[in-house]
Amino acid sequence: MNGLIGLDWGTSSLRAYRFDATGHIAETRARPWGIRHLPAGGFDAALTSITEGWPALPRLACGMVGSRGGWQEMPYLDLPADAAQLGGAIGTLRAADGQDVNLVPGLRDPHGPDVMRGEETQLVGALTLDAAFAAAATFILPGTHSKWARVRDGAVVAFRTLMTGELYAVLRQHSILGAGGAESVDSPDAFARGVVAARDSAAAGAFSRLFSARALMLDGVLEAAAVPDYLSGLLVGEEFRAALADGLARRDRPLQLIGDPVLCERYRRAATLFDIDLAPSLEDAAAHGLWRLAAQAGLVRPVSEVTQAC
Amino acid sequence: MNGLIGLDWGTSSLRAYRFDATGHIAETRARPWGIRHLPAGGFDAALTSITEGWPALPRLACGMVGSRGGWQEMPYLDLPADAAQLGGAIGTLRAADGQDVNLVPGLRDPHGPDVMRGEETQLVGALTLDAAFAAAATFILPGTHSKWARVRDGAVVAFRTLMTGELYAVLRQHSILGAGGAESVDSPDAFARGVVAARDSAAAGAFSRLFSARALMLDGVLEAAAVPDYLSGLLVGEEFRAALADGLARRDRPLQLIGDPVLCERYRRAATLFDIDLAPSLEDAAAHGLWRLAAQAGLVRPVSEVTQAC
Repeated sequence: MNGLIGLDWGTSSLRAYRFDATGHIAETRARPWGIRHLPAGGFDAALTSITEGWPALPRLACGMVGSRGGWQEMPYLDLPADAAQLGGAIGTLRAADGQDVNLVPGLRDPHGPDVMRGEETQLVGALTLDAAFAAAATFILPGTHSKWARVRDGAVVAFRTLMTGELYAVLRQHSILGAGGAESVDSPDAFARGVVAARDSAAAGAFSRLFSARALMLDGVLEAAAVPDYLSGLLVGEEFRAALADGLARRDRPLQLIGDPVLCERYRRAATLFDIDLAPSLEDAAAHGLWRLAAQAGLVRPVSEVTQAC
Repeated sequence: MNGLIGLDWGTSSLRAYRFDATGHIAETRARPWGIRHLPAGGFDAALTSITEGWPALPRLACGMVGSRGGWQEMPYLDLPADAAQLGGAIGTLRAADGQDVNLVPGLRDPHGPDVMRGEETQLVGALTLDAAFAAAATFILPGTHSKWARVRDGAVVAFRTLMTGELYAVLRQHSILGAGGAESVDSPDAFARGVVAARDSAAAGAFSRLFSARALMLDGVLEAAAVPDYLSGLLVGEEFRAALADGLARRDRPLQLIGDPVLCERYRRAATLFDIDLAPSLEDAAAHGLWRLAAQAGLVRPVSEVTQAC
């Protein structure tokens, strides 16, 4: 029986996909069981519970589950790396139920250095969803630790992590930019103003503009409740400024969002202030990547149309 | 009787100087009574206590004591501003002891925008200490909120706040870069590596290198205990990179440190990695600035030698 159980297992959440014999998603389940928030019984109990009632199928997991603090540490694969190399580097652990769990390795960019776990599978999925990106593209994967990744000839050739989401959270909660504990309101204007401040910081960069969040509030230009959206715009804008400044992104190369539609929408708004029109984000990229990598590793029979798209 | 009581009154500390009739510091006292850490009885009690036993002299205070959360809010003076303009904008409040306390206004750079309170007095003091800087110089005032200020023809013409000290603290305490709660060790090598990472981030800037602190630790290149010094180097290095990138500092213009010698020594080490030799920091700049501004405002009789140096 062909088919696959795919697991996208990160720091704060676990998502399981049951694929039918043709690689279509038959069912999706999600639990808040990231590797730092496991239920009693740990990894085995989480896996048993989330796949309850599903047939015994090959299992492939990506994400922080393969990190040092995960179920079993998988070494990083150095760039450049394509789907074939990722598929060939998949590792295995034996779960308490006696069956294997296969693990996708993370990627390491020696220039940086920088590392990712989970996003490599989303990138493979994105290239599966639209092969037109394979020649040359830059992908944006927003999040707590946003990734910008450059692809050439089907391989990831460079990437960078921006701590945007985490910086936003710690600055709001623990710094003077928390604006005196004021409630926040949605302010598209403040967000746009932050993006523009980052853009216009030019070579100095947005580090040098962080304090403007406070100065603008003291000036009466920015309401305290709008400071968080200004800060968000400043940090998201800085991602674009930096990527355009050093060529990780280029205006003459496709630029594509992957991930949560609500978060990606903020990036689309920021992009317009750099005169860049972004298409809506690619969703379920991780699922498509898991199927593709499982096929690459021989865990499932490749579906002919998928094979041709390679 | 000529003389002055000068107060450098910041967020976390209060320092009082008693000047004799010739403008020399006769006595200095320090208390941990910043405007957020006042003793019972508030500002009045702090002032009475720290000046106990001193003669009744004109009193001039600078710093956050004149901020919105201070004793009395003083409006900011917009750039460009020199000692004469600052002295002319000094305000007054009546303390509980029936005598006045004079307050130095802060400065505001409309380009930014950006604001400072207290550093303007240090800058005036630095120009008093060495008039050679008055023509054209850039000053670095390291701290929780570091300031880089450009002076031309005796006036402050531009400045920028970098949240270096605060970012370092919140990232260590609240982010993944806290390195798993490991103890920190002094690591000049890790500090230098961080400075170089910021310098070599070029137009992308050090925001884009923050995560390298974690990647280098995962790589085994950086011990967990050395991550804080790497992070410190990255943030201090970013101050130099940004200031050189947009001309706030220039290699053909004097660059001078003002402030705490231990902290300034880190900036001197960072500067060498940008091929810049910095002189040791100017100390007691706030005290010299308070005397100079008091003379400017007619609170004290200027000492002839000071007058000539103007």
